[in-house]
Amino acid sequence: MAEKKIYLPEAEMPRQWYNVLPDIPGGMPPPLDPETKQPMGPEKLSAIFPMSLLEQEMSTAPWIDIPQEILEVYALWRPSPLIRATAFERALGTKAKIYFKYEGVSPVGSHKPNTAVAQAYYNKQAGITRIATETGAGQWGSAMAFATQKLGMQCKVYMVRVSFDQKPYRKAMMHTYGAEIVASPSQDTQYGRSVLARDPHTTGSLGIAISEAIEDAVTHDNTNYALGSVLNHVLLHQTVVGLEAKKQLALAGDYPDVIVGCCGGGSNFAGIATPFLRDKLDGKKIRFLGVEPASCPTLTKGKLAYDFGDTAGMTPLMAMHTLGHDYIPPGIHAGGLRYHGMAPIISALTREKIIEPIAVHQLECFQAGVLFARSEGIIPAPESTHAILGAVMEATRDKNAPVTILFNLSGHGHLDLASYEQYFAGELQNYEYPAEAIAESLSHLPKV
Amino acid sequence: MAEKKIYLPEAEMPRQWYNVLPDIPGGMPPPLDPETKQPMGPEKLSAIFPMSLLEQEMSTAPWIDIPQEILEVYALWRPSPLIRATAFERALGTKAKIYFKYEGVSPVGSHKPNTAVAQAYYNKQAGITRIATETGAGQWGSAMAFATQKLGMQCKVYMVRVSFDQKPYRKAMMHTYGAEIVASPSQDTQYGRSVLARDPHTTGSLGIAISEAIEDAVTHDNTNYALGSVLNHVLLHQTVVGLEAKKQLALAGDYPDVIVGCCGGGSNFAGIATPFLRDKLDGKKIRFLGVEPASCPTLTKGKLAYDFGDTAGMTPLMAMHTLGHDYIPPGIHAGGLRYHGMAPIISALTREKIIEPIAVHQLECFQAGVLFARSEGIIPAPESTHAILGAVMEATRDKNAPVTILFNLSGHGHLDLASYEQYFAGELQNYEYPAEAIAESLSHLPKV
Repeated sequence: MAEKKIYLPEAEMPRQWYNVLPDIPGGMPPPLDPETKQPMGPEKLSAIFPMSLLEQEMSTAPWIDIPQEILEVYALWRPSPLIRATAFERALGTKAKIYFKYEGVSPVGSHKPNTAVAQAYYNKQAGITRIATETGAGQWGSAMAFATQKLGMQCKVYMVRVSFDQKPYRKAMMHTYGAEIVASPSQDTQYGRSVLARDPHTTGSLGIAISEAIEDAVTHDNTNYALGSVLNHVLLHQTVVGLEAKKQLALAGDYPDVIVGCCGGGSNFAGIATPFLRDKLDGKKIRFLGVEPASCPTLTKGKLAYDFGDTAGMTPLMAMHTLGHDYIPPGIHAGGLRYHGMAPIISALTREKIIEPIAVHQLECFQAGVLFARSEGIIPAPESTHAILGAVMEATRDKNAPVTILFNLSGHGHLDLASYEQYFAGELQNYEYPAEAIAESLSHLPKV
Repeated sequence: MAEKKIYLPEAEMPRQWYNVLPDIPGGMPPPLDPETKQPMGPEKLSAIFPMSLLEQEMSTAPWIDIPQEILEVYALWRPSPLIRATAFERALGTKAKIYFKYEGVSPVGSHKPNTAVAQAYYNKQAGITRIATETGAGQWGSAMAFATQKLGMQCKVYMVRVSFDQKPYRKAMMHTYGAEIVASPSQDTQYGRSVLARDPHTTGSLGIAISEAIEDAVTHDNTNYALGSVLNHVLLHQTVVGLEAKKQLALAGDYPDVIVGCCGGGSNFAGIATPFLRDKLDGKKIRFLGVEPASCPTLTKGKLAYDFGDTAGMTPLMAMHTLGHDYIPPGIHAGGLRYHGMAPIISALTREKIIEPIAVHQLECFQAGVLFARSEGIIPAPESTHAILGAVMEATRDKNAPVTILFNLSGHGHLDLASYEQYFAGELQNYEYPAEAIAESLSHLPKV
C-alpha cells in the first residue's frame, strides 16, 4: 500500500533555518524607538533579549545554522510527519490532494516548542537563567515551560486571567514542567497592579500580559523576555516546519499549488509557507492562503501601520497590519488567534500581494474541524481548524481540479475539548466583523 | 548524533499478530459457562461477538494475519516511535539503558486503538453496524469511538458515572468522534435501572458498565459488544506494540534484560511483553515485570480462580487472578488500572512465574511521572507512570549495572492533567492495601 505518513529520518532534519528577510520584495520598514520614533538598533532591546536573537531579528543571511543542542531537543518529536489526508479528501468528494504537516506530535501538542527551545537555548548561552513570558490560550506558555525545563532554566508565565480561570489543564501542564504561573493582570508587576486598581475584575488580555512579562524581565536579574510569535526570529525558528514539509513532499513526488495556514501572530503560517517563497519569486506557480478569524481580522480589516506589540506601549513600534493595540477581540475559542497585530514579515508579504488573507467565522471552522476529526481521526486545535477550513475552500471550489494543497495542522485539540463540547451544545456563536471597535482602536494608533 | 527516536518505516510494520496461547507452559484453563459451569464453546458468545474474534480467542495458530484494512488505519500513527530515555537516565544517575515505546502518538493518545480498530473491523465484516461498550477513565471509550467512526459504524459508550462527571474532556472527545455516551448506571438498560433503584446516587463501577453494555448488545439489532482488555483476542491485537519494539531494538543493536508494563486488565503489559516470551522459553535471559496499583493488587493479593468479568455475572467464568467481582477499588487516578480481574493470559504467565508482579502506591507513581516529564519532556498518563516507576526501580537497584530496560509508555497525560494538579496540591493520598474489602469480595467467588 502507499504510505500514509511521509516520515523523514532524523538524519534528514534541516540543519539550517530559512531566513526570509533578504527575500522580501520591497524590504521591511525598520522597528522604531517608541520614544524618539527613530529607527532602533539592537542595543536598547538587549535589556530583555540576548544579542544572538537580536542578530537573527535583523540578519540578512539567507540561512542560519541550527545549533546541535537544539537539534537534540527537536529530535524528541521532529521531523514531524507529513500526512496525506485521503479520508478527508473522500469525505469532501474532491480530486484535490490534501497534505497536512502534523505538529501535534510535539510533547506539548503544538508547533510552539520549535521556537521556545531555540529561544531558551540562546538565552542560556547568554548566561540567562530565567525566562518571563505571557500566554493567552496556554500553548505558548506550555511550550516555554517545556523548553526551559529541558534546558534546566526557570520560567514565569503571565497567563491571561480568562484563560487562567477557564483552562486548568494548560495551567497543570505548565506546573508539571515546573513553571511558575500567575493570572494576568497580577499583583507581581507595577503595570499589573495599575490595571487591577482601575478594574479589579478585568479578564485581562494578551497585550497586558506581554507588558507584565516585559516589566518582569527588566526588573529581575538574569531574566529575559520571550515572545511566542510576531517577531522575525520567532518566524525564523518555525521555518523548520516548512523545510521538512518540502523535503517530505519531494519524497512523495509532489509539490503544493497552495499552502494554507492560520494567522494569529503569524509564526504558524510563516513556518509552513515562507520556505516556499524563493520558489514563487523564481516563477513557480504557488499560492499562500492566510486564514484569520473574522472577529480579529488583522490582515483583512486592519491597517498597515506602525503600532505597539503590547497594550502598555513598552515594545518598539513595528510596521505591521494592526487593529490598534487597544483592540480587545471578542472571546473566540481559538485563543491563539486573538492578537491585535500581525508579524511584520507576514504584513510585508501581504502588502506585496504574495499572501492572500481571508477571514472566517468560528462556527464554520468547528464544522470543518469535526469533519476532519471524523474522517482522518485526528482532533485539531481550534486554531488549526482555520487552516482546515481554508483547505476545504480550496479543495471544493472545483472538486474536479487536481490541485495539491498543503496545510499546517499546528496542534491537536486534546486540551481544547471543552470548546468542542460547547460547539456541539450550540453554545458558540459567530461574531460579526466588529467594525466600530476596530475603528475606535485604529484611531489611537501612535503618531509616527 | 545518535538518533533519539528509532522509527520503523511503515513498510516494516508487523503484518501478523503474535498469538501467545500455544506458547503458554501448562496451557490455559477453558472459560466456563456461568450456568452449567462446564467448558464453554464459542456458540453462546456469538450473540455478542463475531465468530472471527471468537476464533482468535481460542486459536492455536502462532501467528495471525493483520488484515490490510486494519493496517491502513494503523498507518495513521504506527509504527510508533521507540525512544531512548537518555535524559531520564541522566536524571536517575544510572548506567542502565532505558527505552520506551511511545503509544501516546495515537489520535486518542493511548495504545487502546490497536485493538479497537481490529474489533470494529471484524464486527463490520460480520455485518454489525453498532458497538456497545463501557469505559472507565475514558481511554477505551475514546478509542472505540475513534475506531467505529473510522469504519463508518455507530457506537454507544456506557461511562462509569464518577468518570462521566469528572472527565468532561474524555466525554467531549467521544462526542467529537460521533459516539453516543451515557453515564452508567443508566436508565437505558434493565440492569442499570435496577442498580439505580437500589442506590440512586451510586458512582458506578466498571463491572456495572460492562453488564449494561452486554445487555445493550444482546437487546439491540446489529449490535455487538466490545471489551478493551482482559480477553485473549484483545491481548493478541496489542502485540503489535512489542513486535515493533523488538524490531526497533534490533535496529539499535540492543535487546532488553527486563520489560516493564503497567497491569490493569493486562493488555497493555501483554502487548509489550509477550512477543519476547518465545525467546525466554528458548533460554534467553529476560525478565517481565508487571506493575499494578497497591489499591487494586490483583496479581499480588488476588486469588487465581474462576470469576466473572463483570458485576452482574453475565460473562463466562474465566480462570484469572481476581479480587472478586464485587470488589470496588478505592478511587485512584489511574482509572484504567481499577479492575477486579486480570487477563487469563497474564494470570497463567504469573502462575508459571514467568511474570514478576509488584504493587506500587500512586504518590510514588506520580513522583516518577513528574521526574520523567521534567527530564524527557513527555507527560505520561497516570497508568503509564506505574511502568515508569517500575523502570526506575530496575534502573536504580544497582546504578552501575548496564542493564537494558524496555517499558511501555502507553499514553500521554494531556487529558489527565487535573490529576497532576491534585498531586501538586497535595490532595492525593496512598491507599493502604485494602485487605478486608478484598477478603470480603473473595469470599463471594462463584463456586465451580
